Amino acid sequence: MNNIYTFREVIDQYKVVFFDAFGVIKNYKGLVPGIEKTFAYLKAEKKEYFIVTNDASRSPKQLAERYHQMGLKAITDDRIISSGMLAKEYLELKVNEGIAAFLGTPESAHYIESAGLKTLPVSEVTARNIHDVNAMVFLDDEGFEWARDLNKTVNILRKRTIPAIVANTDDAYPLNIGEICIAVGSMATMIENIVGKEFIRFGKPDSQMFMFAYDLVRSRLQVNKKEIVMVGDTLHTDILGGNKFGLDTILVLSGNTLAGDAETRINSTGIIPTYICPSAVVE
Amino acid sequence: MNNIYTFREVIDQYKVVFFDAFGVIKNYKGLVPGIEKTFAYLKAEKKEYFIVTNDASRSPKQLAERYHQMGLKAITDDRIISSGMLAKEYLELKVNEGIAAFLGTPESAHYIESAGLKTLPVSEVTARNIHDVNAMVFLDDEGFEWARDLNKTVNILRKRTIPAIVANTDDAYPLNIGEICIAVGSMATMIENIVGKEFIRFGKPDSQMFMFAYDLVRSRLQVNKKEIVMVGDTLHTDILGGNKFGLDTILVLSGNTLAGDAETRINSTGIIPTYICPSAVVE
Amino acid sequence: MNNIYTFREVIDQYKVVFFDAFGVIKNYKGLVPGIEKTFAYLKAEKKEYFIVTNDASRSPKQLAERYHQMGLKAITDDRIISSGMLAKEYLELKVNEGIAAFLGTPESAHYIESAGLKTLPVSEVTARNIHDVNAMVFLDDEGFEWARDLNKTVNILRKRTIPAIVANTDDAYPLNIGEICIAVGSMATMIENIVGKEFIRFGKPDSQMFMFAYDLVRSRLQVNKKEIVMVGDTLHTDILGGNKFGLDTILVLSGNTLAGDAETRINSTGIIPTYICPSAVVE
Amino acid sequence: MNNIYTFREVIDQYKVVFFDAFGVIKNYKGLVPGIEKTFAYLKAEKKEYFIVTNDASRSPKQLAERYHQMGLKAITDDRIISSGMLAKEYLELKVNEGIAAFLGTPESAHYIESAGLKTLPVSEVTARNIHDVNAMVFLDDEGFEWARDLNKTVNILRKRTIPAIVANTDDAYPLNIGEICIAVGSMATMIENIVGKEFIRFGKPDSQMFMFAYDLVRSRLQVNKKEIVMVGDTLHTDILGGNKFGLDTILVLSGNTLAGDAETRINSTGIIPTYICPSAVVE
Repeated sequence: MNNIYTFREVIDQYKVVFFDAFGVIKNYKGLVPGIEKTFAYLKAEKKEYFIVTNDASRSPKQLAERYHQMGLKAITDDRIISSGMLAKEYLELKVNEGIAAFLGTPESAHYIESAGLKTLPVSEVTARNIHDVNAMVFLDDEGFEWARDLNKTVNILRKRTIPAIVANTDDAYPLNIGEICIAVGSMATMIENIVGKEFIRFGKPDSQMFMFAYDLVRSRLQVNKKEIVMVGDTLHTDILGGNKFGLDTILVLSGNTLAGDAETRINSTGIIPTYICPSAVVE
Repeated sequence: MNNIYTFREVIDQYKVVFFDAFGVIKNYKGLVPGIEKTFAYLKAEKKEYFIVTNDASRSPKQLAERYHQMGLKAITDDRIISSGMLAKEYLELKVNEGIAAFLGTPESAHYIESAGLKTLPVSEVTARNIHDVNAMVFLDDEGFEWARDLNKTVNILRKRTIPAIVANTDDAYPLNIGEICIAVGSMATMIENIVGKEFIRFGKPDSQMFMFAYDLVRSRLQVNKKEIVMVGDTLHTDILGGNKFGLDTILVLSGNTLAGDAETRINSTGIIPTYICPSAVVE
Repeated sequence: MNNIYTFREVIDQYKVVFFDAFGVIKNYKGLVPGIEKTFAYLKAEKKEYFIVTNDASRSPKQLAERYHQMGLKAITDDRIISSGMLAKEYLELKVNEGIAAFLGTPESAHYIESAGLKTLPVSEVTARNIHDVNAMVFLDDEGFEWARDLNKTVNILRKRTIPAIVANTDDAYPLNIGEICIAVGSMATMIENIVGKEFIRFGKPDSQMFMFAYDLVRSRLQVNKKEIVMVGDTLHTDILGGNKFGLDTILVLSGNTLAGDAETRINSTGIIPTYICPSAVVE
Repeated sequence: MNNIYTFREVIDQYKVVFFDAFGVIKNYKGLVPGIEKTFAYLKAEKKEYFIVTNDASRSPKQLAERYHQMGLKAITDDRIISSGMLAKEYLELKVNEGIAAFLGTPESAHYIESAGLKTLPVSEVTARNIHDVNAMVFLDDEGFEWARDLNKTVNILRKRTIPAIVANTDDAYPLNIGEICIAVGSMATMIENIVGKEFIRFGKPDSQMFMFAYDLVRSRLQVNKKEIVMVGDTLHTDILGGNKFGLDTILVLSGNTLAGDAETRINSTGIIPTYICPSAVVE
C-alpha cells in the first residue's frame, strides 16, 4: 500500500525538518552511519532542522555535546527541544517556591532547577522537609535506588497534594540490539495507578512538544505547518504526535519499526505516516 | 486547605481570561445569573477574554448567536475557540481530498467542510464511495441513528486505514439538573477499543486547545502565560489542561464541581487549581 | 514453533471436551461443514462434551433448538453452559426481589427471570418504578433503541446504587464474512466509564464460566482438570480462560484466528494454546 | 442508607464464614484486638471458617504459624486459601517441566516448586538456561533487586513466549499507619504494559479464589452458596469478589474502608456489601 521514498525526495518539499533522536540520528551503537550527510545537505539547501526528543536525562547543552563527541557538529543546543525543557517551563510557571523532589540523576535535576526552586532527590525527603515539597518530578530511571525511592515516592504523593510531573513519557528504551530498559514513564504510570491521582506528562505524542518546537522555529523564520515535516521511527510517538499537530510525517525504518512490520503496524494502529523512507540518510 | 476568593480579586491580577462555557457562563437553564456583569467589568477594565470549549456541534458563529439570543452580546465568534476548530484545522492540513464521513448533525458537518473535502454522514457511505472516504470524524451525539450508524462506523474503520478524529473529548454532558447524556467522545472510545486503532482527539485537557487560544490572543496583544488565567468548573478538563499549559487556573463552583466536594476531589485527583471562586460572576 | 495436529489425535488424549460455539461448531453461514462427524466420534468413543459460550441472548433450550434446526442433534440443552446462566444464577442468589431492568430482547430477559424477580426493559423504567429497580442487566445488543435506552441506562445507574451485570463480555461479534457488530459488552464498558462504577461481568475468559462447566461435568462423571480440553477459535477468551482454569487448550483456525496469523498472535499476546488444529472436525 | 449491624447477628445466619486476613483478622500491629473471641464463638457454634487471602509470600503452613505466634491457634493451615495456592495449582497443571523463573523471596518460591519444576530467581537466569525457562511467576515484592531484576524480567518475557503468572493481584499493601508499599501486582502490570502480553492473575476479586475455597468447604460439609458469607475490609477485592461469586458479604470498618467513607465509596463504586459491621469481633 505504502510506497517507499528516498529521504532526499521527500525533504526537498519542506522548509523545516523535525527529527526524533533515537532510531533516526543515533542508536545504541552511536550515530546512524551516514547521517552527517543529511545535515550537510540541509545546510547546503538552507533548510532549518530541530531535534524533538523525549529526553529529560540532561540539558540540551549536554545532549548537544554528546553529538559533538560522536562527530556530529551540526546539532547545537539551540536546535534541541526536549521533554525536559517542558518540565522546566512548567516548574517555572507553576511552582514558584519550595522543593521539587525528583527521581533521576543529579544532571537531570540540575537542569530543571529554576529560580526560587530547589531540587532534592526523593531519597533526601524527610519528615522535616516534606512540607516544603511542592512538586514531584519523574526525570530518569537512573540515579536512585528503585525499591527504596519508588516506595518513598508513593508515600510522598499520598501525604502531599502537589503536582506530579513526568518529563519522559516513554515506557521503555533500547539498551542494545536485543534488550530494553524500563523508562521512568512506566514507573510514573505504576505510581499514578497506586495513588489514584492524575499526573502531568510532557513528551511526544503530546502536542505541547510540537508547539514548543513550532514556536521556536517561527521565532527564526516565517513558516507554516504545511512547510514542516516530522521524521521518526516510532508510530505511536513521532508519527501520531506529528500528525495530530498537523504536520506531514516520515516514518524511517532504521529504528523501532522494521521494514517487514511497517505496513502491518500502520494498518493495525491506524497511525499513518505521510511517507516511509528506509532511513533519514541522504545518499 | 484552599481559600475561597471573589472572582474580581482574582482576575484583577491578569490581563487575559479564558472561560469554559458550560457550568461557567451558561448551564442547562440558560445564562448563569449575573454573568453579564463579568463581561461588562472585563470591558471596562480593558481585559481580553476568550471562550475555550469542547464543542464541535456547531461553528463559533452559531455558538455566538446563541449567546446573543440569550442576551449576552459580549461573546462574539472571534472570541470562541472550540474543539471543532481544531478538527477543522486538522482536516485542512492533513486530509486534502476525498470524503470525510461523520457522525453528527448537518450543522456540525457543514462547519468542518473545507476546500477539497466533502463531508458525508456515515449513513450515506456505500460500497461505491467507501474507497473515497479519507477520514472519519466524530462530531456530535445527535443527527444519526445510533444502532445503524455506530455499527457502520466500526466496519468502515475496519475496511479503511484512515485517520479517525474525535472533535469532542467529553464523555457525557448535562441535560438537566438530574440527567446526563452520552457524548460522542464516549462512543469514539467504544469504537476505538473494538477496532484496536488509535484515534486523534481534540479538546481540553489537551494542550492543543490552549495553544490555539494562546496563538490567537498573541496575535491581538503582547502577553505571556503568566498574564492569563483559565476559568472552569471541571478539574479533569479545564483545570488540568490549564495547569499543564502553564496557566494559572480558577475552579468555579457553579457547575460540575460542587462546593462540598471541591476539596475532596482536589485531594483525590491531585489536580490543583490556583484559586477557587464561588462563580465567575463579578458582584 | 507450534506444530499443527489433527483434531482426532489431540482429543484422543482426553475424557471430556469443552467447545466454544461460534467459529468452532458454527459460523455466520450455519454449521462448520463436517462438524457432525466430530460429535458422532465423541459419542462412539464415549467422551463427554459441553458447549461453553458467551451468549446471553437466549436460553440453553433455545440455543439447542437452533442446533437441531441446523441438523446437529448431538447438542442438547443440558450440554450448554452460557454466560446467561451465570447471570441468572447471580440474580437468584443476590437479587431476591424487585425489578431487574435490562437491555436486550424479550427472549433474553424471559430466561433470566427468576422467582421473586421481575424483568423490565429499560424503556419501561419510569419515575414511579425506578425505586424498585434492584439490578441492571446487559443481555443483548438487540431489542431496544440505542440512543434512548443507553442514555436512560446511564441515568438509572446514577440514581440507583444497584449491581450492574454484564451477561456477555464480548466486545463485538461477526455478522458475515466482512462485517462485525458491536456487542452489549462494549456498551456496558462505555457506560461503566461514564458512571464510574464497577460492573459484574460473566463470560470467558473469566474462570467462573469454566467452573460452572466443571461443576456440571463432575456431577456426571469423575474427572479431573488434566482430563479436559478446551477448544476455541479466540486466544483472548477461549484459550486464555481455559489455560487460567488449568485446562489444556486447542486453538482451531476455523474462526477468529487465521492460519497465517496464529503464530504472530500467540507470540505477541503470550497466550499459548497447548495445541493448534485446523478445525474441530474429525476427518 | 446502609444500616450497621453487629458481627454476631449477621454471622448467626450463616453456616460458613470466609475471612479476608489483613484489615479483618490482623493489621500492621498484630492481631485485631478481641478477634480470638470471634473464633471461639465460631467453634462453640460449630460454624466453619476459612481465610481467603491474596498472599503468595509464603505457604499456608507458614502463614498459620504466624497466627499461632501471635496467639491465635484457631487458624490452621488447612483453613487458609491463598492466591499462592492457585499459582501452584496452575504450575502443576500447565507447566510440567523446566524452570519457573520468579520474583520474590526464597520462601515464596519454595512453596510453588512442584514435581518436575525447578524454581530460579530471575537474577540467576542466564543465556545458558533461559531456554529452559517455561514460566515467569510474580510472587512477592521482596527478595530481589528491583532495578536489575525488573529490567531482566522484561527482557526474559520478550525473548521467551511463556506464561507469566501473577500470584498476588494487590497493587499495594499497608506497612504502618501512614505508609504503604508497592506490591508485586503493580510491578507485574507495569511489565505487562511494556511487553504487551496478557498475564495470568490469581487473587480476589477473581472468582477462582472463591471457587477454590468453595470446593474445599464442600469436601468437608454439605453447603450451598446461600449459607456462606464473605467478610472483608476492601470493596474492590473482598466484597466485589464475594458478590460476583454469589455469596453474601460483610464489609468491616477495621481496615481499608473507614467508617466515614463507607457510604460514599459504596455509592461511587457501586460495589454493595450485604451488611456493614464495625469489625469482625464478636463482642
